[in-house]
Amino acid sequence: MVKGKKLKPELASGFIDRKGNELILKDRLIEIIKRNFQLYGFEPLETPGFEISENIGKFLPDEDRPMSGVFGFKDKKEWMSLRYDLTAPLARYVAKNFENLPKPFKRYQVGSVWRNEKPGPGRYREFTQIDADVVGTKNLNADAEMCILLADTLIKCGLEKDEFIIKINNRKIFQGILDFFNIKDSKKSLTVLRSIDKLQNVGKKGVLDLLTKGRLDKSGDFTKGAGLKKDVANDIIDIFSSNIISKQNGKYMLTGGSKLYNIENEFYKEGIKEIDQIFEYIKNLGKLNIADTDLNYDTSKPIVQFDPSIVRGLEYYTGTVFEAETATESLFKTDLDKGYKNIKIGSIGGGGRYDKLVSRFLNDDYPATGISIGLDRLLLLLKDKNKEAINNNPVVICVFDNKNISKYNELLQKLRSANINSEIYSGDGNLKSQLKYADKRNSPAAILYGDDEIKSGVVTIKNLKKGKEASQKIKTRDDWKSGESSQIKVKIENLVDEIKKLL
Amino acid sequence: MVKGKKLKPELASGFIDRKGNELILKDRLIEIIKRNFQLYGFEPLETPGFEISENIGKFLPDEDRPMSGVFGFKDKKEWMSLRYDLTAPLARYVAKNFENLPKPFKRYQVGSVWRNEKPGPGRYREFTQIDADVVGTKNLNADAEMCILLADTLIKCGLEKDEFIIKINNRKIFQGILDFFNIKDSKKSLTVLRSIDKLQNVGKKGVLDLLTKGRLDKSGDFTKGAGLKKDVANDIIDIFSSNIISKQNGKYMLTGGSKLYNIENEFYKEGIKEIDQIFEYIKNLGKLNIADTDLNYDTSKPIVQFDPSIVRGLEYYTGTVFEAETATESLFKTDLDKGYKNIKIGSIGGGGRYDKLVSRFLNDDYPATGISIGLDRLLLLLKDKNKEAINNNPVVICVFDNKNISKYNELLQKLRSANINSEIYSGDGNLKSQLKYADKRNSPAAILYGDDEIKSGVVTIKNLKKGKEASQKIKTRDDWKSGESSQIKVKIENLVDEIKKLL
Repeated sequence: MVKGKKLKPELASGFIDRKGNELILKDRLIEIIKRNFQLYGFEPLETPGFEISENIGKFLPDEDRPMSGVFGFKDKKEWMSLRYDLTAPLARYVAKNFENLPKPFKRYQVGSVWRNEKPGPGRYREFTQIDADVVGTKNLNADAEMCILLADTLIKCGLEKDEFIIKINNRKIFQGILDFFNIKDSKKSLTVLRSIDKLQNVGKKGVLDLLTKGRLDKSGDFTKGAGLKKDVANDIIDIFSSNIISKQNGKYMLTGGSKLYNIENEFYKEGIKEIDQIFEYIKNLGKLNIADTDLNYDTSKPIVQFDPSIVRGLEYYTGTVFEAETATESLFKTDLDKGYKNIKIGSIGGGGRYDKLVSRFLNDDYPATGISIGLDRLLLLLKDKNKEAINNNPVVICVFDNKNISKYNELLQKLRSANINSEIYSGDGNLKSQLKYADKRNSPAAILYGDDEIKSGVVTIKNLKKGKEASQKIKTRDDWKSGESSQIKVKIENLVDEIKKLL
Repeated sequence: MVKGKKLKPELASGFIDRKGNELILKDRLIEIIKRNFQLYGFEPLETPGFEISENIGKFLPDEDRPMSGVFGFKDKKEWMSLRYDLTAPLARYVAKNFENLPKPFKRYQVGSVWRNEKPGPGRYREFTQIDADVVGTKNLNADAEMCILLADTLIKCGLEKDEFIIKINNRKIFQGILDFFNIKDSKKSLTVLRSIDKLQNVGKKGVLDLLTKGRLDKSGDFTKGAGLKKDVANDIIDIFSSNIISKQNGKYMLTGGSKLYNIENEFYKEGIKEIDQIFEYIKNLGKLNIADTDLNYDTSKPIVQFDPSIVRGLEYYTGTVFEAETATESLFKTDLDKGYKNIKIGSIGGGGRYDKLVSRFLNDDYPATGISIGLDRLLLLLKDKNKEAINNNPVVICVFDNKNISKYNELLQKLRSANINSEIYSGDGNLKSQLKYADKRNSPAAILYGDDEIKSGVVTIKNLKKGKEASQKIKTRDDWKSGESSQIKVKIENLVDEIKKLL
């Protein structure tokens, strides 16, 4: 078909392949999440990968990063872009179908998104997002339920209650703080927002650079600063590092280092009021069980906590913002990418209220609130936990002689009827290659069914799991012999039961 | 956020949105298919949307169609393309990971593919493919099992045994026929292949044009012809229309119109031999049950049938080819696209053997065989069948007064704990809007829990399903009153049971 020079089978830069049991776990998580979204009354939506470019604009969190952006494609009539998130397409969808939608409109969507950004270790240009949103309501109960939904979903996925915290805040509080420091320019405000969002990643020194003159990162890329005066920048950093709002004489005072700030502007007060209202709702809920999940809000360590430093990097939030963070500072090992052995998993999901997104299309505001789950990070967290539980690899029936294929088929049908993943070896190799194959696939067992066995109505089951454990311990020739006990002969009618035991 | 002129929230040309219970069914199908692929010993693989352009080339079935092609994107260093199928990326993956893969390598993949073709009614530029392939075996048993897997999977998805046929053929037979007619030029051969593949769609007259001078379709697009002489073209059309190969005096004779052809070349004989071998395997299997599916090959109407006119449009097949076709010529209505009310569903899946695909990268051939299921068409087929079965919409608890939210929450928790999709109305509307909302969502029930009800420990359940049926029959005012029987009062402790009855 193709002659001459051979091509190098490389991946495009910034993309990866995934395979095997990691994907089985990913599918399970997606299924659990979808099912829970449905339980909460959300319906599925699927929008296409491409949208008309100007319709989805570019609301990326990291506009300031070099080479950031979207994948654009010039069509016959217009520019199209691959979606960079699921929220911008939702806004387009809602505007397009406005008349016919139930109001509010509750949908979830699972899908790939693409970002044309500089790839790096653990940083890919394509990833899976899972979102649930309620569009068309100002009701703060909807925000509260979004927090609960996020917590409940994470628990159903397999996280323990003490493994994560949902940190909640309100953009109006942030806006109030900016107003207090007289930062009015909207571009400057956005830079401050994104700088504070990076506090955990780049530390106080890094944020000071970002708030003032700009920052040069390790890779040599420069991020423009907000141009604040150093003392203002330091005050702001102190506030978001102390992270304390306390009620004193009926006023909500803000601590920053050794200073105490009394902020009285409308934004600030409105934000505090909204947070109060959401906690009221969550506390009410917390006395109850969320389906089979006991959220127990009123414990010494509530799952939902107020945290003024949570701002979320996306420009479009207007009120409530929250983030699910892993409670522990553990480092998780990953083989997803060999160049990035230790990954500190921070946020595994979050969301908030965005009241103006549809305003690109419609004259009226159409307020909305939603969550997004970081599936890849969640997967990373749960992968080690589930390593033993998932082995979806098939039992391999070895082929001694093609003439006996109908005999092998009899065994195969027995196993598959019992819902046991299984196959007759489908390659061209001899018995040695077949066992090597089963081993490479990490199969739980290989089945030997030669002429002698067929005659006497038995099969030999080679327990590869046990065999593998044993072979790791083998030191002497005697050990090796005893290791052979991983191989047993059973009557055909007992095959399924024996395999089930072994699984 | 955005000021001035409002944008039109249109979809990019050739793309669609999908929503609601159609997607619930789609997810179920995908789950059934994946599970069955696992049962047959396939493991999941996920390759990225983008590949380096020259690595995946362009093996599209319709190169001859105007504007056909892929979505390309110029990256920093190289051109990338969105995948147009899942087979080309598989070849790249296998070549890249050749050393470490189990051999043979059995994988399945589900994902979107994109084709930069002229959009048309029912013809989109993005669709979902589901593939399973065995890479690295010449074993014809693998081809046979692929046919069985396809049949078994379609039945598990909900098709009846008499609703489809798997038609099987071998490219070597096709090649033998071309050789017989002395058609040697590879480009000409490909044009003949694609023309025959269109026999069902464009008819004999259309294929005659394609085989000779070329064809102008209704939309005004011209497809270049193969340039055969008219009598040769007519002979070929006769052969593939009669579609009969019969054994006479030990030779496999081909019928074409009133003529009888005795083809003796190697390709032809090899193809016949391979088909025989595959049927031998399938017949052996057919005596047994495939898991819980009774394939019963040896009936008067076998599920797998030989059909020499099945060629498959893709260039890369080298041996076995097969296609699952709906057995009936029924027309299926669809609301997927309003401009295309009646869709004739032909092929809903197929596959075959392709032995040279990895040769772009590796010096050795690495033979492979696989299937691909046309999910969107299958969905169309099953949608009407399942319409009643799937109602995933939530029970809506109406909000009379926000102060009673914790009361509503008690009901909500009861329902959700019983795994019943449910929600407290999360919008800002009054009771009338809330019922309108529940109606628009096609909710099975709305729950009314006002002050009176709370006091007396009862809830009112409005059966919206029944109510809808009743309202369709209402003609007089008296009818309307009797229609109100769709509303019942039950004790709180009986809420879940009553709702379950109603679902």
